[in-house]
Amino acid sequence: MFRGKTFAFLSTLIKDGSPQISSVWVDIAGDDILIDTAQGRVKQKNVARDPRVAISVVDSTNPYALVTVRGKVVEQTAEEADRYIDLMAKKYLGMGRYPFAMPGEKWILLRIKPEQAFFIRLRQ
Amino acid sequence: MFRGKTFAFLSTLIKDGSPQISSVWVDIAGDDILIDTAQGRVKQKNVARDPRVAISVVDSTNPYALVTVRGKVVEQTAEEADRYIDLMAKKYLGMGRYPFAMPGEKWILLRIKPEQAFFIRLRQ
Repeated sequence: MFRGKTFAFLSTLIKDGSPQISSVWVDIAGDDILIDTAQGRVKQKNVARDPRVAISVVDSTNPYALVTVRGKVVEQTAEEADRYIDLMAKKYLGMGRYPFAMPGEKWILLRIKPEQAFFIRLRQ
Repeated sequence: MFRGKTFAFLSTLIKDGSPQISSVWVDIAGDDILIDTAQGRVKQKNVARDPRVAISVVDSTNPYALVTVRGKVVEQTAEEADRYIDLMAKKYLGMGRYPFAMPGEKWILLRIKPEQAFFIRLRQ
């Protein structure tokens, strides 16, 4: 499901411990979930403070099937972030390169290690 | 958007303060967001302990537009819960009555008071 083309919903914790939700592009590498974000965005600051997250994604071929995962951001790296934003642009937009780059924007790749995963098939 | 037919994603806090995401049916009443859940489910126990939530819903007519809301569960009541689960079954399933009732299942209506809302139009 994380290889599909639907956006995922990422929940992070803001400073006071309350939850926040962002919609994100997502990919996987091995058993890890990858999210690319620009440095300084709310979710990046949130996970730098508290790495605990939850993430849900709906099956792109079946809107009644979804996976919801709890885990931790175990790594934030700039190293492969530029390569992955282009890979995700290919996956989500069918473009060879991320077309919305802004001057000075610095990409950070968040690597999420899943701790619990639930597969849910909703009643139709 | 909360009147549309797409599922919403609700983030609640589990006991240790980490976030959890559930997919939910949703409705609105005035400015409040309504979610019906069975008593004893994880999200109901979570909001009984800590009422802070975030909720996101995608526009049912435009998958690139979504709203994400932060707020608090200000009321949990059994009073109108049975009526609303039937209303939601009508909205989401086109059925006059919720068809999956289980013996002994007790419905609880969660009333969420929004504190912050963001409208997001994703780049296509």
